[in-house]
Amino acid sequence: MITIMSENNVNAYLLFTCPDQNGIVAKITQFIYETGGNIIDLDEHVNQNQQFFSLRIAWNMSKSKVPASELHEAFEPLAKQFDAHWSIEFSHHKQRVAIFVSKYDHCLQEILWRFNMNEYDIEIPVIISNHPDLEHLAEANGIPYHIFPITKENKQEQEAKEIALLKEYNIDFVVLARYMQVLSPQFINAFKNKIINIHHSFLPGFVGGNPYKQAYERGVKMIGATSHFVTEDLDEGPIIEQDIMRITHKDTIKDLIRKGRDLERIVLARALGYKSEHRIIVDGTRTIVF
Amino acid sequence: MITIMSENNVNAYLLFTCPDQNGIVAKITQFIYETGGNIIDLDEHVNQNQQFFSLRIAWNMSKSKVPASELHEAFEPLAKQFDAHWSIEFSHHKQRVAIFVSKYDHCLQEILWRFNMNEYDIEIPVIISNHPDLEHLAEANGIPYHIFPITKENKQEQEAKEIALLKEYNIDFVVLARYMQVLSPQFINAFKNKIINIHHSFLPGFVGGNPYKQAYERGVKMIGATSHFVTEDLDEGPIIEQDIMRITHKDTIKDLIRKGRDLERIVLARALGYKSEHRIIVDGTRTIVF
Amino acid sequence: MITIMSENNVNAYLLFTCPDQNGIVAKITQFIYETGGNIIDLDEHVNQNQQFFSLRIAWNMSKSKVPASELHEAFEPLAKQFDAHWSIEFSHHKQRVAIFVSKYDHCLQEILWRFNMNEYDIEIPVIISNHPDLEHLAEANGIPYHIFPITKENKQEQEAKEIALLKEYNIDFVVLARYMQVLSPQFINAFKNKIINIHHSFLPGFVGGNPYKQAYERGVKMIGATSHFVTEDLDEGPIIEQDIMRITHKDTIKDLIRKGRDLERIVLARALGYKSEHRIIVDGTRTIVF
Amino acid sequence: MITIMSENNVNAYLLFTCPDQNGIVAKITQFIYETGGNIIDLDEHVNQNQQFFSLRIAWNMSKSKVPASELHEAFEPLAKQFDAHWSIEFSHHKQRVAIFVSKYDHCLQEILWRFNMNEYDIEIPVIISNHPDLEHLAEANGIPYHIFPITKENKQEQEAKEIALLKEYNIDFVVLARYMQVLSPQFINAFKNKIINIHHSFLPGFVGGNPYKQAYERGVKMIGATSHFVTEDLDEGPIIEQDIMRITHKDTIKDLIRKGRDLERIVLARALGYKSEHRIIVDGTRTIVF
Repeated sequence: MITIMSENNVNAYLLFTCPDQNGIVAKITQFIYETGGNIIDLDEHVNQNQQFFSLRIAWNMSKSKVPASELHEAFEPLAKQFDAHWSIEFSHHKQRVAIFVSKYDHCLQEILWRFNMNEYDIEIPVIISNHPDLEHLAEANGIPYHIFPITKENKQEQEAKEIALLKEYNIDFVVLARYMQVLSPQFINAFKNKIINIHHSFLPGFVGGNPYKQAYERGVKMIGATSHFVTEDLDEGPIIEQDIMRITHKDTIKDLIRKGRDLERIVLARALGYKSEHRIIVDGTRTIVF
Repeated sequence: MITIMSENNVNAYLLFTCPDQNGIVAKITQFIYETGGNIIDLDEHVNQNQQFFSLRIAWNMSKSKVPASELHEAFEPLAKQFDAHWSIEFSHHKQRVAIFVSKYDHCLQEILWRFNMNEYDIEIPVIISNHPDLEHLAEANGIPYHIFPITKENKQEQEAKEIALLKEYNIDFVVLARYMQVLSPQFINAFKNKIINIHHSFLPGFVGGNPYKQAYERGVKMIGATSHFVTEDLDEGPIIEQDIMRITHKDTIKDLIRKGRDLERIVLARALGYKSEHRIIVDGTRTIVF
Repeated sequence: MITIMSENNVNAYLLFTCPDQNGIVAKITQFIYETGGNIIDLDEHVNQNQQFFSLRIAWNMSKSKVPASELHEAFEPLAKQFDAHWSIEFSHHKQRVAIFVSKYDHCLQEILWRFNMNEYDIEIPVIISNHPDLEHLAEANGIPYHIFPITKENKQEQEAKEIALLKEYNIDFVVLARYMQVLSPQFINAFKNKIINIHHSFLPGFVGGNPYKQAYERGVKMIGATSHFVTEDLDEGPIIEQDIMRITHKDTIKDLIRKGRDLERIVLARALGYKSEHRIIVDGTRTIVF
Repeated sequence: MITIMSENNVNAYLLFTCPDQNGIVAKITQFIYETGGNIIDLDEHVNQNQQFFSLRIAWNMSKSKVPASELHEAFEPLAKQFDAHWSIEFSHHKQRVAIFVSKYDHCLQEILWRFNMNEYDIEIPVIISNHPDLEHLAEANGIPYHIFPITKENKQEQEAKEIALLKEYNIDFVVLARYMQVLSPQFINAFKNKIINIHHSFLPGFVGGNPYKQAYERGVKMIGATSHFVTEDLDEGPIIEQDIMRITHKDTIKDLIRKGRDLERIVLARALGYKSEHRIIVDGTRTIVF
């Protein structure tokens, strides 16, 4: 059947964590072999205290004996045996990503450019903002743009609408592309480990506002940017990616802001790439990026 | 028996390549599981043209049902099934490394310092040179130092002696730590993919002599260093590791030589580390560094 | 007079080279002091063989006693005294830059984004291409887009038209933003040291076509990009800026092309920035970037 | 006169700061020109708020009409005119550096190796430690090694002896090469902006003890090292140099310690180099490194 063929001609991505024990890789790779999968990529890790085993396997299902729609059910007994947390995603289901922005365009521009270059295997069904400034970019890319102005008074109400919109759009994860609002715990908990932020410093240095001003005043010789999952503790969530750039005494705060834009763009773009390829596992305050 | 216990309380390192097919990882990890091994690290790769499968697995044998001395025999049938090239090394056999030097001390110093810090799980039973200059360093570290002055006339003869000495010392691989002689094909073939060199440029740029002078004259904005396996084609062997450093118009050739020393030290040190941890597979003109 | 005030409320940029001798800096800074200039930035360099002195000074003219329009004449006697090559540019004359493109959009996008962010103090009066593909980008930015399809037969004729167009637009320098045509010596000599190219390798490695394929096959561990002035010798012109990115055996040629785009963008963007700020002096096969 | 000739055949290094005004560079370079000096290197900077002018000039005195011994007096009137802080050092007076260590050898080894390679134009007349562990290294390099064990009770007394020893040895500045004691305010004030420390994190992240453990637990994707002047506020002094290294989830705390050693070595070595070449000016909480 053509439908089944097409459903099977996809890649599967397993993310899997469990308490460490012998034989996990053997049994899981045996499962894949028996279902007719062809492993493309495999990476595993046992953390420092030897307790937390994690695994990512990507395999091609073009000759799979089990259709994608039945793979979860087929895999479940094995996962239960290891008391695992796991997910299997398929390349024929593109993850649906919502971008949040305020007034700065550089991170959004970067993401849209890569999206249009087909660097990401995702869909961007919606862009959400507290300001109208970047609507033209959404429009030029044919993406709906929703504006929710935020004040102290209306924040809870507006966030509720945003959450409803995200559910309506069936959003898999959220990217804050220099979105200049702190999300409430309700919002964060509704998308646990599914909200990626970019902070314009090398965390844990310079949390909070005006990190480039802080960096200038401290006299650091390099500036950085950090992409992390959003948790209730501001700028404390698990770090996905960081990068830095050398500066000198000649750079003013304005120079740091200008140069930092390049870091913010590239670091957020990489983090989004890792997430879109199902490469990230959160282990407490840390991430494993396979 | 104490001897057997001790023999088993080791790590095994498998390097394995074969034509790609399904089920390789499943069968090999099943073998390790059945022999009581506990996988520490696993990395695999299929090359771009989808033909060449390569795999590295490190596992702990403390609960192994098969002693290290019998593991090769036990594994061989599986390897034959996949028509594989493979090796299994054990942590209780420290690789024996010979260092070749001439007059520059920086690479030798770096290796000896790391060796003394226990960064490498190797033995350095001998240092060989065409000059007496660095004998004091060998002496201070209690390592025999053999001098073989090389001229056009005596080259073949001296190399024959060196090869004999390397065999006598049971050398596993050779590191050329700024050894300023071109090795003959006979020597190279006697240690195929077992001679690691450091070249003081970002290959393939600036092959041959005086690469810093070449770099200065070309006006590059970065200099580099490259560690590679030695083949008959000068500076053309498979690259193991490279790194670079930013320079400016202010740097003279003398500055490049001085700054480049830092690159040479670190790049060769890393390459030696990868080799000592059984991480390198040669795939034609390329290396896979797991 | 308002006109004169405005003409004077500008920065001047001196680029100056001459045979080295004592007292050059003293006399030139004395000149600036006496004309009422306030030095913002000063950088000088004497090359390795101690023959070639070069200097860049930026100064503010808001309190200048000599109007910008008379500064050349006022400075000339001093320059003659040192037998110098020199230029003085003013911030109220924005350099006029022509961008050449073919089908790839990433370098053009990057330049236009920075241009719109006011990172460059330039004008882009025209974009020229041998293909119609990127016309929409020019249009969206309100920049005229001229198409000159090139064949072996019409090359000379088309280039003549291009040169005429550049003169008509009063172009100060040209940026080849992945323009996929080799320029003829006539074209190059008409704009000596005024054509900036981006080559997608770490020169001098991998000159010519398909550098990412060459890089893959050589098995380098880092890829690079190089921006340079165009000379008659392909990929041999004075290098302005380079950067690199680490890769691994996992990266296919397709990955290198994708990752390399980020390098090409940033390296060309930096080179254009240096040129637009009058920071580059060509010293034979090398550049001095102040 | 041979004595005067030899005294004059040296380089002079001026470090100069004052409130910004016009004509400073003109007058100082005129002074150098008139005394027969030949400028080798000149770099100047006006800080962001346009108040603080700083300047470094290196010039050769081989044809100087004023002997080095009289240059201070000759320059003083000019300096007074600008209300400047300034110093002139000469290449025939090698700065005298004391190294403080505890038990880790890597930073000391690095400094001694570079010192022996003549990378630094300094003298190291004494090494001071609170432990006997590294005496063999001092001995092998023919440098006196003084041990001052520190306890809470004897700290004040021992530091007094150390200060006396430093004065006796005529020490110009101090390098803490992983010296594991916090210096008292008395000690610090006796050598204001003359004590260089290496901290094993990318400051301001991870101040205080166990920064690699802190880094592991925070899950950063890069580790760093920072060299700074010591002030009374722990790890808060003006930063001279920083660098970073990429890590992954695979790195244990032990790996971070091992990898971090390479950063600590190189960052401290660079900071020492800048200081030895009279390149550093302290501007409040920041440094200018010319």
